[in-house]
Amino acid sequence: MAGSSVTPTPLLKDELDIVIPTIRNLDFLEMWRPFFQPYHLIIVQDGDPSKIINVPEGFDYELYNRNDINRILGPKASCISFKDSACRCFGYMVSKKKYIYTIDDDCFVAKDPSGKDINALEQHIKNLLCPSTPHFFNTLYDPYREGADFVRGYPFSMREGAATAVSHGLWLNIPDYDAPTQLVKPRERNTRYVDAVMTIPKGTLFPMCGMNLAFDRELIGPAMYFGLMGDGQPIGRYDDMWAGWCIKVICDHLGLGVKTGLPYIWHSKASNPFVNLKKEYKGIYWQEEIIPFFQSATLPKDCTSVQQCYLELSKQVKEKLSTIDPYFTKLADAMVTWIEAWDELNPTGEGLAKPSISNGPGK
Amino acid sequence: MAGSSVTPTPLLKDELDIVIPTIRNLDFLEMWRPFFQPYHLIIVQDGDPSKIINVPEGFDYELYNRNDINRILGPKASCISFKDSACRCFGYMVSKKKYIYTIDDDCFVAKDPSGKDINALEQHIKNLLCPSTPHFFNTLYDPYREGADFVRGYPFSMREGAATAVSHGLWLNIPDYDAPTQLVKPRERNTRYVDAVMTIPKGTLFPMCGMNLAFDRELIGPAMYFGLMGDGQPIGRYDDMWAGWCIKVICDHLGLGVKTGLPYIWHSKASNPFVNLKKEYKGIYWQEEIIPFFQSATLPKDCTSVQQCYLELSKQVKEKLSTIDPYFTKLADAMVTWIEAWDELNPTGEGLAKPSISNGPGK
Repeated sequence: MAGSSVTPTPLLKDELDIVIPTIRNLDFLEMWRPFFQPYHLIIVQDGDPSKIINVPEGFDYELYNRNDINRILGPKASCISFKDSACRCFGYMVSKKKYIYTIDDDCFVAKDPSGKDINALEQHIKNLLCPSTPHFFNTLYDPYREGADFVRGYPFSMREGAATAVSHGLWLNIPDYDAPTQLVKPRERNTRYVDAVMTIPKGTLFPMCGMNLAFDRELIGPAMYFGLMGDGQPIGRYDDMWAGWCIKVICDHLGLGVKTGLPYIWHSKASNPFVNLKKEYKGIYWQEEIIPFFQSATLPKDCTSVQQCYLELSKQVKEKLSTIDPYFTKLADAMVTWIEAWDELNPTGEGLAKPSISNGPGK
Repeated sequence: MAGSSVTPTPLLKDELDIVIPTIRNLDFLEMWRPFFQPYHLIIVQDGDPSKIINVPEGFDYELYNRNDINRILGPKASCISFKDSACRCFGYMVSKKKYIYTIDDDCFVAKDPSGKDINALEQHIKNLLCPSTPHFFNTLYDPYREGADFVRGYPFSMREGAATAVSHGLWLNIPDYDAPTQLVKPRERNTRYVDAVMTIPKGTLFPMCGMNLAFDRELIGPAMYFGLMGDGQPIGRYDDMWAGWCIKVICDHLGLGVKTGLPYIWHSKASNPFVNLKKEYKGIYWQEEIIPFFQSATLPKDCTSVQQCYLELSKQVKEKLSTIDPYFTKLADAMVTWIEAWDELNPTGEGLAKPSISNGPGK
C-alpha cells in the first residue's frame, strides 16, 4: 500500500540526501526524527553566515553557509541565489547521492485520514522507484499502485511506462497560493486529502512547488536549477516555478516522468502576503509570457543529456525572453554557469562522482 | 461542497436526458429513484425488439427498440450498432436537451467515505457547469471547487478556464479492466475513493468509459458517436474508447474541456472475461496503431463546428486507418452517416431543435 507506514529498514538509506534551506534553528526536525534520522542531511544556510544554526542532536548532516558556497564555487557562486530559498539548489549540486528530497523548515508531518503520521519521504521514494505514465492518461490514477491497474483501452505497449525523474508532493493546511490569492482568501486551508499519485502528461506544464519535492539527481539533477532570486534580483518566489518549467520541458524531451499528488506534508505557516506580493509582482506579469515560451519550447534531437538540454534551453531563454527584461539575459548566463559548476563538482557528468573540489563544508 | 448531497430542487431538470442502453428490465432504477426520477429517461433497447422491457413505475421515459431506430433513421440506421451498448448513442441523437447523462444498467449508487449515497448525476452536472483547465495543470486539482483554488504560479490569464464539454465519472467495486487484466486479476476490486475532479490536459488522450458519463450535447454531441460495434462487426467494447479518442481531439481543437474523477458509481458485476476477450482482441491489437493516429491528428483551423471537425476526422480515419483493416473504411463511412442523421434530427445544427422526423417513439 502506498501511504504512511514506517518501514523497519529505511528505503535508499545510503542513496538519498535531504536538502533543507534555512535561516533558523532546525527544531522542525524533531517531528521528522523517526523518518529522517537514518538519512544524511545537506543544510544550506541562507542569509548571515555568522549566525549559528542549531541542528537537533543525532542527525547526520553537512551545513553550508554563504562563505562555504563562495569558497567552493569561486566566481561561479554567482549562480546561487542569496536571501531566497532558491539557494537550496546548491545542496543538489554538492550531494553525491542518486536521489534528493528537499523540504522547507516550516513543513511538518501530516496525518492521513485514518490519523496516522504520513512518512512523506517513504512515499516520495515509492513514487521515484516506480514508473510514470506520461504518454497516455490512466483514469484510475497510478496504475502501479496496489489495488489499481491500467484500465480498459490503455495501450499495452505503453504499460511499461517511463522512468520517474520527479515526485512533487502536496501540502495540507496552508495551500501554496500566490500573494493575490493569499490576500483574497486569508483563511483558506487545504483540508482535502486526495489519495492519488498521478503522472503529469507529456506536453503539460505544472506549477512545481519546492516545499516538498523529490527527484532523481542522476536523471534530472542538472536541470533542477532554482534560478536567480532574492538579493539583487528583481523577483522572488519563482525559483521552484522556474525549475519546474525547465525540468518538465526536458523530461518530456528525454521521455522521463513527473508525478504529483501524495505525499502530503503539513504546511504550518502562511508567509506574509504583502512581502510576497513585492517579491512576486514581476513574476506574475512575466509568467504570462514565460509560460507560452516553455509550452512551445522544443529541443533538438541531438540533445541527449540533461546538460545539453539545459544549455540549449538557456540559449532559447536568452534569445526569446530577454525582450521581456534584461534580467533574462542574466538568468540565461547563470544557467550556463550553473551547468559549469555542476560539471565541476560532478566530473563524470553522471552527477554521482565525488566533487573534485575538496574543501570540506562547515559542520 | 462537491460531492453527495441531495438538493431539494434538482439541477437542470428540464435540460438533461438520461440515456440508458439495455436488454433487460430496468429494476436498477429503483436504487436511483431519489436522484433520477425528476429527469426524463431515454431508453435504448438493444437486441430482440419484441421483448418487453419493464421500467419501474413513476419514471418519465421514452423507449426506442431496433424497429424504432430503423423507422426513424431509415437507411441511415446502419450507423447505429446492434447487440452492443454502442447503440446508446442513438439516444444522444434523439434527445432535445442540452445535456446528456448516460449510465449502464449494472451500475448502482455508490457511497462516499462517510457512508452517504453519492448523487452521481448532481456531481456530473456540477462538473459540466463549471469550467475546465486544459491548458495548465493545477496541482490542487479542480481550482473551482470549494476550499481549493489555483496554486502559486498558475497564469492569471488562464484562470477563466474553458467550457466543460465532458464529465467522465469513475467506478467503485468492479474496475473497468480489459479482458486480459480481468483474467489475470479476477478478484481485484476498486475500493479507493479519490476525492478529486481533474481536467485532462490538452494534447492528452484518455480511455473514456461509457458506463458513467455526462456531456454537453450542444458543445460536443455530434462527436459522441460510439462507432460500429457488436452484430456484424469485427470488434466490441471499443465503442466508448472510439468516442473518447474522437471527442478529445475535437475538444482540444475547439478549446473545450474534459474532466475525469468524481462521481463514482457502484459497478456491480464483472462481465465475462472470455466473452470480452473475443470482442476485444482485435481492438487490443489495433489500438496500438489507432492511438498514435489520434495522438498526432490535427484539424484545420477552418473546422469551427463539431460537425466539420468530425467529418474531417472521418476523412483522416479513412485515409490513415484503412490500411489496418477494411473495417475502418466502413467505420469512416458510418461516421459520415452519423453526422447526416444527427443533422437531420437536429436541423438547426445546434442540436437543440425538435427532430424534423416526427415518428413517435414506442413507450
